[in-house]
Amino acid sequence: MIKRIESTQNALIKHWKKIATTRKEREKTQTFIIEGFHLVEEALKNKAQIVQLIVREGVDLPLLWDIDDIAMVEVTAAVAKEFAETESSQGVFAVCKQIETVAQKFNRVLLIDAVQDPGNIGTMIRTADAAGMDAVVLGTGCADAYNPKTLRSAQGSHFHIPILREDLISYVDTLEIPIYGTALEQAVDLNKIQAQEKFALIVGNEGSGINPQLLSKTNQNIMIPMRGGAESLNVAVATGILLYTLVKA
Amino acid sequence: MIKRIESTQNALIKHWKKIATTRKEREKTQTFIIEGFHLVEEALKNKAQIVQLIVREGVDLPLLWDIDDIAMVEVTAAVAKEFAETESSQGVFAVCKQIETVAQKFNRVLLIDAVQDPGNIGTMIRTADAAGMDAVVLGTGCADAYNPKTLRSAQGSHFHIPILREDLISYVDTLEIPIYGTALEQAVDLNKIQAQEKFALIVGNEGSGINPQLLSKTNQNIMIPMRGGAESLNVAVATGILLYTLVKA
Repeated sequence: MIKRIESTQNALIKHWKKIATTRKEREKTQTFIIEGFHLVEEALKNKAQIVQLIVREGVDLPLLWDIDDIAMVEVTAAVAKEFAETESSQGVFAVCKQIETVAQKFNRVLLIDAVQDPGNIGTMIRTADAAGMDAVVLGTGCADAYNPKTLRSAQGSHFHIPILREDLISYVDTLEIPIYGTALEQAVDLNKIQAQEKFALIVGNEGSGINPQLLSKTNQNIMIPMRGGAESLNVAVATGILLYTLVKA
Repeated sequence: MIKRIESTQNALIKHWKKIATTRKEREKTQTFIIEGFHLVEEALKNKAQIVQLIVREGVDLPLLWDIDDIAMVEVTAAVAKEFAETESSQGVFAVCKQIETVAQKFNRVLLIDAVQDPGNIGTMIRTADAAGMDAVVLGTGCADAYNPKTLRSAQGSHFHIPILREDLISYVDTLEIPIYGTALEQAVDLNKIQAQEKFALIVGNEGSGINPQLLSKTNQNIMIPMRGGAESLNVAVATGILLYTLVKA
């Protein structure tokens, strides 16, 4: 028997809407909400993390999905709109638990300092996953890893790679691996960088770069050459170039 | 004497709103509208391309801006909202002419096939500029290069690098330089790729990649290794990794 909700005033719907729209509620409840077939399929690979699966009436789930033990809720189209991120949502959602990862000895870790745009954060999580990093650590001042925009641009990588939140200035003191930063001064050209077995890479805010106090703790800074008229690269693009240079094997 | 417009019903305001919101109007008039101090400053480097400079009342322009010969219009806050892209616009705008570039013998050119997201297109134009490419060629099915989101994410690179629109399938036949594509099959690992003096790189649609007919015309395809759980990279991130590998010198 599937539970069905038809009222936008239902308490559970109000709760999901809060999770979808406010970081405060996501942090209080340690949950987040995902949308679309691809993301839900990724979440299903570890069913324990799913609180509820939500389906809009009329939407067929793939027969191959193993969802027997999962709490399922059917909602009307009007109700789905309350917590859907996109206008044209696919009508399938899941409320998931945030997985807490304890800091440990990672060999390859991406540190993100005060990146504001949720889309950039999501793209960087996806890129770190693709490059084979062990973890992503978000510092203070970063957009929320569980913002719907972050989740969408990460394309399911939240379910592949541990994501931690730490105060980066104290966190880097615990690292026993070479720490690379990105900077325009006192920096080595990207072309001179060798691949590394173990490393931490710090990337910084879209406008102001890495916090100077944090930058003073790096072992080496890298500069990506700007050959044309552009002053800088998008931070997620820069992260991709740096990670694929450092992990090249 | 600066012209001032206070009515949202003014014909010029309706015209600017159309330019801001519809590709059809931008193409018909061969113009586009930019927003914010950084973009307008970039446009001012070539004043001939500016049709009008628009300033919201109360906004001070930098004293160093050389704007003597430029048609200026002051508008009220309510009027500015009509054509502003962002809620919290900086209150400075410029209507610019689209510069037509004729296809010529480029040594390094980025070809973009059917990329849908304007933000991705803009980030790729910015990345191609930073990497020192000679031009960006947008194929059929790409988002508009002059969409406000494209302009914002390109951060002024529209004023640094020629942007062409071509049918890529016939365009590639005119090229006399090695053509690289991106693919998962019959492709060489990124790590085996050497920098090239002259090359064209084709990147494709976010979901489906490069059109097979176009892909059949490449000299070599490159595969970026996926080391973690991610199935693919964001197309702008992939473009950054590929361009910085190919132009490395």
